[in-house]
Amino acid sequence: MTERGYFVSFEGIDGSGKSTQARLLSDHLRATGRDVVLTREPGGSPGAEHIRKLVLEGATDRWSPETEFLLFTAARRDHLERTVNPALEAGQVVICDRFADSTRLYQGLARADLRVLVDQLHELVIGQEPDLTVLIDMDPETGLSRALARGDGEDRFESFGGDMQRRLRQGFLDLAGEFPDRFVVIDGNRPVEDVFADTRAIVEARLP
Amino acid sequence: MTERGYFVSFEGIDGSGKSTQARLLSDHLRATGRDVVLTREPGGSPGAEHIRKLVLEGATDRWSPETEFLLFTAARRDHLERTVNPALEAGQVVICDRFADSTRLYQGLARADLRVLVDQLHELVIGQEPDLTVLIDMDPETGLSRALARGDGEDRFESFGGDMQRRLRQGFLDLAGEFPDRFVVIDGNRPVEDVFADTRAIVEARLP
Repeated sequence: MTERGYFVSFEGIDGSGKSTQARLLSDHLRATGRDVVLTREPGGSPGAEHIRKLVLEGATDRWSPETEFLLFTAARRDHLERTVNPALEAGQVVICDRFADSTRLYQGLARADLRVLVDQLHELVIGQEPDLTVLIDMDPETGLSRALARGDGEDRFESFGGDMQRRLRQGFLDLAGEFPDRFVVIDGNRPVEDVFADTRAIVEARLP
Repeated sequence: MTERGYFVSFEGIDGSGKSTQARLLSDHLRATGRDVVLTREPGGSPGAEHIRKLVLEGATDRWSPETEFLLFTAARRDHLERTVNPALEAGQVVICDRFADSTRLYQGLARADLRVLVDQLHELVIGQEPDLTVLIDMDPETGLSRALARGDGEDRFESFGGDMQRRLRQGFLDLAGEFPDRFVVIDGNRPVEDVFADTRAIVEARLP
């Protein structure tokens, strides 16, 4: 029987460099001979990418927070069924740019009492966490200016500005405190290669 | 303060004539001076119609039953927020072609243990039922041949054939037994005007 793979998620505010770290980790592990699936949420499977488009395109108020989190959860379910779990069952390393923690945080900040619903729905239809979550912690002002400079236009929460970035940063740190066995927090306010040295050391120490 | 409107759903197997009855009722009530919103599920609001397309187009196995019911629930939430509840709050009569009972039945038949999940998710994010549900009961063979003759191509469950139609018919009757205060069963195996005479009498007796 194939040994089950390993599931790493990257979290952090927009402009934290989490996507870069996910890619560097994926390249590095592949170079050492590991079988790696680099994926992202929302999205990561053909169906989930369609749902991603539906959620992220159009006006910010196109969906209520409740409808939005139902759509994100549908996308996550599809992503797990079609991409993540088949890879884990085949013994691969799955590296995912954002996972359920982003939903907990963004929906919970949009409407405080939604966090309860998010947790209930997660337990009902997802019921699964990464083995390791790497939080790239980043100064909110630096993150925001980086994200705005990149201007990919899809991260709609950027438009909420600096105050929201500060609340999101604190929210991620709070989640790290809530799930200490799973989260590792890395200081992202350093050159990318220094951040990656930490990322790599932590992941390699934990990989089966 | 405006008196709250009235919410009627129509249910039944494909080819039962429920959409025709919903339209006839809508025309009739409008002719008597009522303010009526005729709508349908999945769909019924711009966002929910987008989700409808996502679910009903493409291969039958494009989505798992779980992902499909999450998408249907997202569409229902949007439909309620943007169409149904604003109309009810404005005192209008809302007539809806299919509602949550279709999800209970179709998802529950796709995978028996899904019915529990469907009910939990309904309670979590929908939490609302029609005031009256009219079930147009129809001989499964007649319904299937009517639906196939119409050939609108969107009702994918038609492809499951006669045995599935028989199980769906029985499933709707079981739901009527489960919610006797809300359901009324009308024999649809008669000329459309006879069926409508019953529909009209029942709805008019209950309207506020």
